[in-house]
Amino acid sequence: MTIYNFAAGPATLPDPVIKQIQAELPSINDSGMSIMEISHRSALFDDIINAAEQDVRDLMHVPNNYHVLFFQGGGTGQFAAVPMNLATTHKRIALLDSGHWATRAGDEATNLGYQVDVLDSTKDQHYQALPQYDKPISASDYDYLHITTNNTIEGTAYHTIPEHGDVTLVGDLSSNFMAEEYNVADFGLIFGGVQKNLGPAGVTLVIVRDDLVKPVEHIPSILNYSLFVKKNSMFNTPPVFNIYATGLVLKWLKEQGGIAGIQKVNQQKASLLYDFLDDSKLFANHIKKSDRSLTNIPFTTGDADLDKQAVTSATEAGLMNLKGHRSVGGLRASLYNAMPLAGVQALVDFLHNFEKQH
Amino acid sequence: MTIYNFAAGPATLPDPVIKQIQAELPSINDSGMSIMEISHRSALFDDIINAAEQDVRDLMHVPNNYHVLFFQGGGTGQFAAVPMNLATTHKRIALLDSGHWATRAGDEATNLGYQVDVLDSTKDQHYQALPQYDKPISASDYDYLHITTNNTIEGTAYHTIPEHGDVTLVGDLSSNFMAEEYNVADFGLIFGGVQKNLGPAGVTLVIVRDDLVKPVEHIPSILNYSLFVKKNSMFNTPPVFNIYATGLVLKWLKEQGGIAGIQKVNQQKASLLYDFLDDSKLFANHIKKSDRSLTNIPFTTGDADLDKQAVTSATEAGLMNLKGHRSVGGLRASLYNAMPLAGVQALVDFLHNFEKQH
Repeated sequence: MTIYNFAAGPATLPDPVIKQIQAELPSINDSGMSIMEISHRSALFDDIINAAEQDVRDLMHVPNNYHVLFFQGGGTGQFAAVPMNLATTHKRIALLDSGHWATRAGDEATNLGYQVDVLDSTKDQHYQALPQYDKPISASDYDYLHITTNNTIEGTAYHTIPEHGDVTLVGDLSSNFMAEEYNVADFGLIFGGVQKNLGPAGVTLVIVRDDLVKPVEHIPSILNYSLFVKKNSMFNTPPVFNIYATGLVLKWLKEQGGIAGIQKVNQQKASLLYDFLDDSKLFANHIKKSDRSLTNIPFTTGDADLDKQAVTSATEAGLMNLKGHRSVGGLRASLYNAMPLAGVQALVDFLHNFEKQH
Repeated sequence: MTIYNFAAGPATLPDPVIKQIQAELPSINDSGMSIMEISHRSALFDDIINAAEQDVRDLMHVPNNYHVLFFQGGGTGQFAAVPMNLATTHKRIALLDSGHWATRAGDEATNLGYQVDVLDSTKDQHYQALPQYDKPISASDYDYLHITTNNTIEGTAYHTIPEHGDVTLVGDLSSNFMAEEYNVADFGLIFGGVQKNLGPAGVTLVIVRDDLVKPVEHIPSILNYSLFVKKNSMFNTPPVFNIYATGLVLKWLKEQGGIAGIQKVNQQKASLLYDFLDDSKLFANHIKKSDRSLTNIPFTTGDADLDKQAVTSATEAGLMNLKGHRSVGGLRASLYNAMPLAGVQALVDFLHNFEKQH
């Protein structure tokens, strides 16, 4: 039985990448040492981290005045790092509240003593549409505006960056990082854990414009952008294996035609499922059409028991991890970069049959 | 040619562990999913992290009133986390300055606004012996005393815990974590990255006494002990692969007779090299005998060019990463748990031949 893993993250990885890691696990680059054993100060690893950085630059067309950095600690780490490094003038942050992870980012900054102004929220619409604040936001009021480009739990995504005046834009791209195209230059800073589209959990990518990186004191070193820029992301021991594996996924992504190439496939995958759901008399997705995510698609029968039954039957059919987030209920299919079209087809076929039987 | 990797960390791992990871990389536990792909919220991973925790408890005989936690961010992350979580009463820390990493821990706490009092230092002895402060230290003056049990760069180790009165003891065990026995109950908190003795880089173990874990506000969540205790180390996505691999090393360690068993082997390995160095007319280790580390052994000919030549020849013979740290120079052999006795024998044979030829 072919297994398809629809988990929201950590999530499915490209088969050829898993095979390559497996093949070279005992000896990386004929060194006689496993990638898990080599020193981060070795020429071998320098090549790996530098290639990964360059591949991020190539794939996202990162302008030269941006740094590409590798951190530990996930998006949650960056919820602290971003205000601590960037909110140094006004200590005041603007936020568009598009769901759970936007709220979490705001809460972390508030807890650290920053003022967080929620300019707009779609909480009263159960986050089934995106906040669209259309007034200019001034850099003389806020250090930055935080947005979550893709809302993993709610299933929405900004396909167009909202108007934001002259304020610095910070994007949490975690769940559609390199799954659809964004213009890096629209952002002052982009961050995201790799464990959805780009690699195994344990690496966090940060892309930050040079003028925003200033020496900041009195913050933990592992969250200090300036130190990480100086030390090429190796202020302390980085997660060597995870950066290596992420690097292989980046190379795979280039082979898929880069982000433009994979986005086309992602659109095809998402359309296949959305079209089914929109036609279905049993299942439905309730997200505003223009705001629908390509990578996270929640849906429901409207009956919690029947939803549960669908998840159980799907699991038996090898369609794994379709249970929706507890805050939303129902089902959720995460269709990240490494999910093949065949997996979505198998899901649609299953849902179609399930519908016929109920 | 058999390769032996004497790197100071990331470092050599047990062969059977690498083979097991390789074998089950495409499908963990017959799930059809790679360990790199499974959700940290899955029953599969719950079993893995709970077994790893239990194995830490078994191996170190951790008392029931201690928590075992898994963090990201390395020892450097804990240099910030420990004062932020523990130095809440006096905001004052005592430190025994035994070398580079003790200094770094002190600097991080100072930078975060804590008062750090260096009670004793062996800097003027080039850290070739350990500071032995023999006055009692009072909990009414300090939140804790920080020691580095094993000094990776300088090659010293506390085989007996220094006297410290009633003050809470914090131990950075990074480079001899589970390589020699310590009594957990002597410490209020123990921490260390796993990438020397226990696994691939990317996991940091913290063992902390229950009464020291208090809700602390205004600190980054990824460094918050209280949150990690509440969420069983999964406040946010943990490094799933790295915890799994660490778990396999822990199981391997149990098969070696636990810490008591591996310590005997480590003593044998260290004696083999120290005995050679003490007999040698070319190479010497300059560390005070009672303070010598089992896991990191620096040595030198006293001639920088000849040292360099020895490193080069050793590399050609498959004895890798013997270059000493730039602050000490010379050579350094790291003999962590997974380094077999045969590797140390090969090193001694090589050094013996090198000596004959020079």
